[in-house]
This record gives sequence, C-alpha cells and structure tokens, in this order.
Amino acid sequence: MSPLGIVKRNIRRADRAAVDRLSAFGVATIHEAMGRVGLTQPVLKPAWPGARLCGTALTVLLQPGDNWMMHVAAEQIQPGDVVLAACTTDNADGFFGDLLATSFRARGAVGLVIDGGVRDVAELHGMRFPVFARAVHAKGTVKATLGSVNVTVVCAGAIVEPGDVVVADDDGVVIVPAAIAAEVAEAAARREANEEAKRARLAAGELGLDIYDMRGKLAQAGLRYID
Amino acid sequence: MSPLGIVKRNIRRADRAAVDRLSAFGVATIHEAMGRVGLTQPVLKPAWPGARLCGTALTVLLQPGDNWMMHVAAEQIQPGDVVLAACTTDNADGFFGDLLATSFRARGAVGLVIDGGVRDVAELHGMRFPVFARAVHAKGTVKATLGSVNVTVVCAGAIVEPGDVVVADDDGVVIVPAAIAAEVAEAAARREANEEAKRARLAAGELGLDIYDMRGKLAQAGLRYID
Amino acid sequence: MSPLGIVKRNIRRADRAAVDRLSAFGVATIHEAMGRVGLTQPVLKPAWPGARLCGTALTVLLQPGDNWMMHVAAEQIQPGDVVLAACTTDNADGFFGDLLATSFRARGAVGLVIDGGVRDVAELHGMRFPVFARAVHAKGTVKATLGSVNVTVVCAGAIVEPGDVVVADDDGVVIVPAAIAAEVAEAAARREANEEAKRARLAAGELGLDIYDMRGKLAQAGLRYID
Amino acid sequence: MSPLGIVKRNIRRADRAAVDRLSAFGVATIHEAMGRVGLTQPVLKPAWPGARLCGTALTVLLQPGDNWMMHVAAEQIQPGDVVLAACTTDNADGFFGDLLATSFRARGAVGLVIDGGVRDVAELHGMRFPVFARAVHAKGTVKATLGSVNVTVVCAGAIVEPGDVVVADDDGVVIVPAAIAAEVAEAAARREANEEAKRARLAAGELGLDIYDMRGKLAQAGLRYID
Amino acid sequence: MSPLGIVKRNIRRADRAAVDRLSAFGVATIHEAMGRVGLTQPVLKPAWPGARLCGTALTVLLQPGDNWMMHVAAEQIQPGDVVLAACTTDNADGFFGDLLATSFRARGAVGLVIDGGVRDVAELHGMRFPVFARAVHAKGTVKATLGSVNVTVVCAGAIVEPGDVVVADDDGVVIVPAAIAAEVAEAAARREANEEAKRARLAAGELGLDIYDMRGKLAQAGLRYID
Amino acid sequence: MSPLGIVKRNIRRADRAAVDRLSAFGVATIHEAMGRVGLTQPVLKPAWPGARLCGTALTVLLQPGDNWMMHVAAEQIQPGDVVLAACTTDNADGFFGDLLATSFRARGAVGLVIDGGVRDVAELHGMRFPVFARAVHAKGTVKATLGSVNVTVVCAGAIVEPGDVVVADDDGVVIVPAAIAAEVAEAAARREANEEAKRARLAAGELGLDIYDMRGKLAQAGLRYID
Repeated sequence: MSPLGIVKRNIRRADRAAVDRLSAFGVATIHEAMGRVGLTQPVLKPAWPGARLCGTALTVLLQPGDNWMMHVAAEQIQPGDVVLAACTTDNADGFFGDLLATSFRARGAVGLVIDGGVRDVAELHGMRFPVFARAVHAKGTVKATLGSVNVTVVCAGAIVEPGDVVVADDDGVVIVPAAIAAEVAEAAARREANEEAKRARLAAGELGLDIYDMRGKLAQAGLRYID
Repeated sequence: MSPLGIVKRNIRRADRAAVDRLSAFGVATIHEAMGRVGLTQPVLKPAWPGARLCGTALTVLLQPGDNWMMHVAAEQIQPGDVVLAACTTDNADGFFGDLLATSFRARGAVGLVIDGGVRDVAELHGMRFPVFARAVHAKGTVKATLGSVNVTVVCAGAIVEPGDVVVADDDGVVIVPAAIAAEVAEAAARREANEEAKRARLAAGELGLDIYDMRGKLAQAGLRYID
Repeated sequence: MSPLGIVKRNIRRADRAAVDRLSAFGVATIHEAMGRVGLTQPVLKPAWPGARLCGTALTVLLQPGDNWMMHVAAEQIQPGDVVLAACTTDNADGFFGDLLATSFRARGAVGLVIDGGVRDVAELHGMRFPVFARAVHAKGTVKATLGSVNVTVVCAGAIVEPGDVVVADDDGVVIVPAAIAAEVAEAAARREANEEAKRARLAAGELGLDIYDMRGKLAQAGLRYID
Repeated sequence: MSPLGIVKRNIRRADRAAVDRLSAFGVATIHEAMGRVGLTQPVLKPAWPGARLCGTALTVLLQPGDNWMMHVAAEQIQPGDVVLAACTTDNADGFFGDLLATSFRARGAVGLVIDGGVRDVAELHGMRFPVFARAVHAKGTVKATLGSVNVTVVCAGAIVEPGDVVVADDDGVVIVPAAIAAEVAEAAARREANEEAKRARLAAGELGLDIYDMRGKLAQAGLRYID
Repeated sequence: MSPLGIVKRNIRRADRAAVDRLSAFGVATIHEAMGRVGLTQPVLKPAWPGARLCGTALTVLLQPGDNWMMHVAAEQIQPGDVVLAACTTDNADGFFGDLLATSFRARGAVGLVIDGGVRDVAELHGMRFPVFARAVHAKGTVKATLGSVNVTVVCAGAIVEPGDVVVADDDGVVIVPAAIAAEVAEAAARREANEEAKRARLAAGELGLDIYDMRGKLAQAGLRYID
Repeated sequence: MSPLGIVKRNIRRADRAAVDRLSAFGVATIHEAMGRVGLTQPVLKPAWPGARLCGTALTVLLQPGDNWMMHVAAEQIQPGDVVLAACTTDNADGFFGDLLATSFRARGAVGLVIDGGVRDVAELHGMRFPVFARAVHAKGTVKATLGSVNVTVVCAGAIVEPGDVVVADDDGVVIVPAAIAAEVAEAAARREANEEAKRARLAAGELGLDIYDMRGKLAQAGLRYID
C-alpha cells in the first residue's frame, strides 16, 4: 500500500526527440506553452551560476537526513536522465555532493533537481554538473531508512512521474509530462516565434497597450486617467 | 475613495540634477545621509550580479498574478524613470520578463524595482537591464484586474511617492523623497568625504575606539575588561 | 551573572599549526571528520562569490541594531583571528561594512562570520575580505548598548567558544573546538584520502551499492525491485 | 493539454462506509496506517480550536487573488464532500468566508481544506464549519480567471485526486486515496488496538526500550553509557 | 530631514462618531468597503483569543530592541487611541508588556497594534487589553535610541497616519484614513446589509453562480464541463 | 570526539529548592533577572493553551526524522525533569506523541521542550502534559540512528546543559544555568516586588517618563516636541 521501499526498474521515458526539442527552450516559455502549469515553487536554485539541464526524470523519494536511496537510484540511471529527488518531509541536509555527482555522471545522468540540500558546490561547479536544490548545506546524511525510486513524487509543489521531462534554468524548474512532451515542444516553438515579432515592435517603442489591444478592455474595467 | 483603477499622468519628478548627483553614491551612504531611513526591507535582490540603478519612481500597484498595470505603466514612462512596482498582497509570480524590459527600455526606463517576481533573468542580464525583485519565478500572469499607476505605494516596507528617487545596488534599495533629493545628495557627499579620512586612519591600525572617542562612554556604560 | 558587558582579553586560541592544517580542507570534510557535528545552520552566506576563511574565533555578542561591540572587538584582534559575531536576538541590520573591514584587516583579522546583516558588499568584494552573513542590509546601527567580547556565543545554532577554529566556504560554516583541532585535521586528511579512491571507482562507473556493500542491508530492510 | 478551465462533474468518491470508518481515527494514526505517507506539510491550521473533518475531496484549483472557482465548485458538492482547494501559486488571500461557508454547507459540504487564506473566522467558528487553511487574511479576491474543479491537485505538498478521503484534525491533514480507504481504515483500527496495550504498559512505568526490544540494537549501533 | 527624534503633539484624529460607527464592523467588511485596500499583511495576530479593537492611531516608530518611545508615546495618548507601533527594521523583541498596558490604559488607550513582539500575554489576557503583534517574545528591550511619535509609519505593509482609524479582529488589521472614515462606515453598512440578503439565499441552497450571474462569463472565459 | 552516541547517566541537577522558587515566576521576569539572557528564539509554542512547566533539563540530541533517543531518554528521567530535545538539523517531524508522554510522565517528567515537531496534541491537552514545540506535525519518525542523551545542546538558539532549569510559559522558554538558579530566583523575586509598586503608579496615570526619570535623557538625546 505504501509507496516506500520500492524501486521501479522499467519506466517509460519521454520520447528522446521531444526531450531534445524541449532542451532548446527556456523554462518560462515551456511553462507558458503548457498553459501556465508545471512549475515547481521558486525555491529550487542553481547550485552554481549558469547551471541548466534538460532530461528525463528518474525520481527518488528520500527520508530526512538519509541519502541511501541516492545510491539505489544510481544503478537505475540511463543516459539522459535527470535525477529528481523529493523527501518525505522538509529537510535541507546535504544529501548530495561531488562523489554522487561523479557516480551519477558516470552512469549517464545530466543533472540533479532536489527538494533538499546539497554540498560540495564548488566541486559541482568545477565539474559543471548541473544541480538545482532548495539549500546548500554541508550537513552529512546517513544510510538507514528506505525511501523509493521511480515512484510518483511531489517536488517543491510539482507532481513528477518517472520519465517526465525536467527542464531547469535560471528562471526555475518545469516538469513536462512524458505524454505531452512533443506537443509542448511544438507549442513552445510557436510561442517563441510569436515573441520574436513582439520584441521587435516593443523595441521600436510601440506599446503593449496597442499591440495587445488593451485600451478598450481597460476602459471597460473602469480605468481612469487623471492629471 | 479606493486607490485602485487610477493612472496619474502628471507627476512631479525629483530634480534631474539631484538624481544625477545621487547616482554617484551607494545605497548605504544615502540611507545614512537621510538620517538612517528610507530603505526597503532586505528582500529585494538584484536579478543579475552587479545590477545598479538610480532614477525617478514611476509607481505601479499590481494585483496578485496579474501584470496588466505594467503595460499601462509603460506608456507613462519618461526617460530616467525607474518603474517601481508593489502588489496589493504578497505574490512572487513572474510579473516581468524580457519583453517588458524591452518595452520599458524603449520608453526610457533605467530599471525596475518590484516587490514580486520576475523571469527571463538570463535575458535581463544579457540586456543589462537592472532589476531588483523579491523572487525569480517563471510563473506567468494574467491581464484581468485593475491596479493603479502613479499612486503612493508601499514597496517592501518603504513608502514611495511617484517622482521620488530610487537608488538600488548590492546593499539594497533606498527611496529619497523628491523634495529632499538635493539636500540628501549634499549630505551624502559630506558623509563620503568624512569616511575617506576615517578609512585611512583605520587602515593604519588606529582603532574606532579612539577615533570615535568611545572609551569613556563604554566605561560609563559599565563595560568590564577581564583576563 | 549576565554574560553582557564583558570583554575577555586573554583567550586560548587553537594551535596555529592545527589551524593551518584545517585551512586545507572544505567545510563538509571537516564536519564529517568531527563526527557530523559543528555546523551552523545553512543561513550564513558568503558576501561575495568565492569567499573562504579559516582562523581562530574572536567572539562578539551584539545587541540588535547596535554595532558598538564591533569596535570594542577590533582592539582584541590578533593576527589570524576570525571575528565571529552573534546577536542577543534575530536582527538583520548592517552591523558591518567596509570601514570596519579596513580596521579588522589592519589588526590582522582574516574574515568575519556574523549571524546578522552586513553592507558595502561590493567594497568587501573589492577588498577580498571574506564575510559570511545571514543578510545583506544597508540599515545602519547605533552605538548605545553593551554586549560582550570573547564570551561563549550561539551563532546560527552553533556553540562557539573564543579561540575555536572557524572554517567557512561555499558549503557553510563549521566550528572546531580548539582542544580537538589537531585531531580533526588528522581525521579530515584521512577522510579526504579515502574519498579520492572512491571517486576514481565511481568515475569508472562502479556503484556505491557495491563499493559500500549495501545490497544485503537494503534487502534486509525490505527493499523491493519491481518492473 | 492544460489542467486549467475544466470542471469534471462525475468523480468516483471513496466508499462511504470506508469514509465513515476513517472518521473515527486521528490523522497521525491514519498516516501511520498508510505506511507513513499522505500528510500535507504542517502549514494548514484549523481556523478555530477543535475543528475536525472527514469527507471526500472535491478539488478546486484556484488562481492567485481569485476565488471564482469556489463558486463553480459549490454546484458540484455532494453531501459528505470536503472542498479541497489548491492554488497555482503561493497566495494567502482570503478566498473563503462565511458566505461561501453558508453556501457549501447548504450543498452538503462538511468542511474546507485550503492551501491559501480564509476570513470571517469568528463567523466560521460560530457556524462550527471546519476549515483548515494556510493563513487567515481579510484580503478580498476577484472573480476573473479560470482555474479548475475536480482535477488532480497538489495541496501543501500532498497529491489529491477528486474523491480521495480527506481527514483533518489538530495534528494536520491526511489524504487517503479512494482505492485504499477501506484497507487503511482496517490498518488504522489494528494500529489503535495495538497502541492501547502499549499505553497501559508505558503508564505503568515500563520502558519503550524494553517493550520494543531496543537495547540490543542500540548497543550494536554503538551507544555508550557514561557516568 | 529625518523622521526620527520627533514627537508631534497635535494630531487630527478621525471623527469620533465615524470611529464609533466603524467599531460595529469586521475588518473584512471595512477592507471591502474601502475598495479592497487598507489591510496590514496577515502577520499581526491577537495576543489572546477574541481580542478586538477600534480607535484612532497614535503612531510610534521604534528602534530595534528599544522601547523608549513607548514611554514617550504614553504621554500623548488620548482616550480612544490605539497605540500603533512600527519599527525601523524587522525585530521581534518584547517591546510591550503588562506594565505598559497598565500605563496605556490609564491614559485612555483602547489597545495596541505592533509590528514587533510583546510579552506578558497571560497578564494582557487577564486585563483584557487588546493587542495585535507580530510575535510573542519575552526578550527585554533597552531605552537608548530615539525613534518618533506621531509620524507617518509603515506597519506590516500598511501606511498609517496619526489619527487614522485602526480596526483589528480575528481576520486582521485595517487602517482607515481619517478623512474617509465616515464614508467608509457608510459603505460598510451598505455592504453588510447586502450580504445579509445573500446569506439567506445561499443558506437556502441557491448558488453564487446564479445569484451573481456568473454562468455566462464563465462560458465566455472558456470553462468546459466534462464528465 | 563526537557528541553523538552517548548517554550520560549522572548529571548534576539544579538544586530542587531553587527550581521550586523559580516555578513561581514568569519567563519574562526570569529572563530579566538573569540580565536579559537565556531565552530560546520565539519559535517554541505551547502545544495547548495555558501549558506551563518548570523543571530540570534532561537533554536529548535527536537526528532528523528519528526519535530513537526519546526512548533512551525515558530511562534517564528523574522526577521533576523536563525533557529538552534538540536536533542535529532543522526538522519538524512528529518526534513525540501521547505514548511517549505517557511514558515520560510515568517516569516523573513534568513536560517537554522540543526544537522539532510533536503530534497527538489533543491527547496531550487531555493529559495536561505541558509541551513546547516548534511545530505540530503528524509525521511519524523511525528508530535507526544514534543521537545522545545528556550532552550540551543548542535548542532554538539557547545553550542547555543537562541539569539546567527550564521554565516555559506563554511568553517563551528560558534556560537558567544550574549554578545560578538560586541567585536568579532571588533576583526574580526582587524584580517582581519592584514591578508591583510601579504597576500601581502607572495604573494611577503616572507616566514612565517621570517614574523612570527619562525626560532629561530624552532631551539630551535630541528629542524634539513639535505641534
């Protein structure tokens, strides 16, 4: 009954081509393309400036102060995976450092998103291993209690299924369900094309009020201009 | 009666020469020169390292999850303005991104201070458009509910009148009422000159205890030295 | 009876050779070498990227909004000291800026750790004076109420005795009691050597599950692999 | 593609008998009976002392500062439902007050759980309408932007499917998936029976060390008793 | 130039009759009647259950850890005043306890609103002296640094002018500018009358969807009902 | 070297008579009598209204998500002890509930102070077992990792040695070192007597400005009265 103590070995990862297409877009664009959903809360920060990642979620459910499941997860990594870790309770301990990064990378992982703490951030930066975490904390962890690997988790407020696409950049972290990855990439491309045209008009001094035809709606809503 | 639904078109901006003089000083110096007031709470952070701004406040009062008033504000911008946005409630959504930055810059704005969230921070960095915000969040907003432009607002604990001088750097954000901008610039210059002399003495190993003549007062307050 | 209003002049600083040895290790390594204790809470952040420090604690107990004791502390600094400041209550005011940094450095201090706010961070960066603080805040302070110098303090959750070793880097801040500094340095060296070997094996794709011999314990704990 | 703008009318509610059985147990017991999962984060508090609820989730996804969907939800309520509201972003506005409580009760709702703010708490207390909320805030909301009703939501970190069982008391809020409600009620009953026996032994002065046979494991883990 | 170090003796208090009328309404009603403005942030909590107050603001600007100005304020109290205290920085120390409550009441004050800490809450409850505060903290304060009395302050995000009406209850704290107190009382009465009618209809099972005629707008916004 | 994995059996408890005398005073009074020190941060709240405790500290150092040491501690309790629990990291899990309360009481404990979470608060209220905690959370814990009993701990910012006096009431939690317990009780009695006289004068309308002779000092500090 409980989702604890389980490792799911075979998961359906999002289509690789769709993941590759999504990797070209920023988090804000993808979030908009999905209809303004899919973001984590804005508490996950890059562990080093400029970190960016896009890959398929290998999910981990941790216990507080315990990173045992990170080692179990390592074995399940396939090239292109992002390890996405949640915890059964709020905990900022340093679940992850440069040794695990070395291991994850050796297995093919392209980054980590964790609703918890990490350490060795200078080394992670040196390795250019992308990490997005709630906290930086040197606090060590034990290996004593079972969590799970590849179960559905909630990470900083977002639902993540194993195999979903995870994209993270300076603006945050977005989760794209595997089933709609291609469709979202399509919508993101359309959105970006559309933005390019608007950017040029705005740069020329045109107003959003006119481009988006807002004046009538504002007046109808009762906006009053006074001197 | 309500301050909502209003755009004030004509505001009295602080004297340009005073603004220019203030732009030479840091936020801490200006705050001290004003008698230790005028700061926002220390929750507004630069969206990119090294961002700095100084200009006249064009105020915006936003509704949560809604950036409609940002577009209304764009039309009111005059060269040298800082758009200073508050919200009717705590909200970290991404009210502002690179498109609005493009528009604001095209109209002459020199930066943004917002008690809310922003996105596209990599692009803002690339544009070198200075932004100070409570949060970075990719979360998109709607355009549905009226706020106001150029009304008095409270931004991260500081009162801001339209036309006040806004200065922001790594140390925070300070608001200088338009009426005293010249006077504050004067006091800041005096303070900075005074600090220069002290810096040299301290660098030479002299103690603040002696420079500021504190030993007597400390003794009188009851300070005891023990071995 | 009260620990306020006291300056202890003679403190027993940790052995210099041990401090020097500890300076070679990261905070996470030292914390592990001590048996996973000694860290402050993860709220103290470097005031500029790359700041790092290691030295003997000269402790300061501040009152809220008041940095008088920082000046008293300056006189007690000996070369190699880290000024480590706590406050009698939570307070983020800017207790410290470039003038005090100039003074502290002139007296031989190698950095500051403060459970409070600092300002002039651009100047501190320019000086490359290492500072770890809870907040950056331009808010000025007064000089009116006695705290203490070189009493036992709690700084962001860690007990600090005057003379203890303070090490801070990107991963946090750790306090090593003076009496065990040499022993901890020894243990840190051992730990680091041990990690080097593991890193190579992990980089080669070996799993922590095997290196640390975890499979039996995981099975015993009831871990189930499903497909 | 987006989960916004949808009202699902037919949901499969948990079996009524199972809901009734669960209503006899506390949140902590149910959480343990599920294998230590299912809780929201401990940020949802009763709006008045002693509030308690148990029912089937009618889920609402709100937009910040906007309670339009609460009115849409009212029509979908069936007797025994708990309205369970999440928001697309963190927002503490007062989405709910005594008028909505009157409406919800008239439709058969037995309470509200909301990851947001509520108001009129004195009136809610007077009505004895159970409410668990993140905040109490008089801030009014608009009716302008679509969210959804009866989609999967994340409420204070817990995944909730429409029809799941929601139980809330002084210890927090727990979500029991509809499919396992009967099984969990069974396990909760067993657990409670088991606790009764232990309580008597502990009250008689027996130690958990002996009742749970911990001494050997503690010794094996290396616990040392010193004088 | 600075607003510190000033006591303004003569302030224009809101009309007593308007204050009396406002005292009949809840905070949420008054906030709505003002056009959804005037609230403090939802961080000020009653120091004891059921506390409620309505009066004219005598404002105090405190320094962190220092309650000197509370004594200065006592002399300025007139019957019917609410002492409304802000601080130059975030500080939760216990600025106020039963002795000051005794003094304030003796001078005619009807309560305290403070963006800071208070203590002796059991005694305040016993006295039934209404207090709304950010924190309860036994931490004592000094009397060493000047703030001000009866200057404009920002209290938990709300601007307060001396003489404004302050109303506080379980739902929060609202500030009514003195000049519009009568007008707001009028609007509050209208709103309450209007709500009474709606409450009866909702209690009878009618839906807000119909009472507020929302169905058309929801459809136009694109709401889809699915089964 | 590490303080983990240790149970100290023989501790020197504060003199019983001094504990009894201290139990007559409030936390604020004791804190003042100690010279304004000794408080925890104001994050520990009574688990039920009116809880109050005074006793000798039996300290526990917990690991996150793990309450094993609570059971170890139970055996060390002597009549009159307060179990005072800290954790090696911030963690709000429910370390304590009615079963442990039953056990602790059976061994003679008079209450619990914990920098963590507790559950079963309705039952604790029913038992009238006083508990002060950082959080209420139903989240269960494991029994897997060693902490310690009767070592020095930091609890919500306060240093606690085993045997110190712990007093808690609505105003917070204060720690009185065992060695000065009698002296502090004496000072508290003097302070309370002194306050009684002042209360009467203040109730009669006399001002603190006059009772404490503040007018000269205020003028000297530069306070200006304006009309």
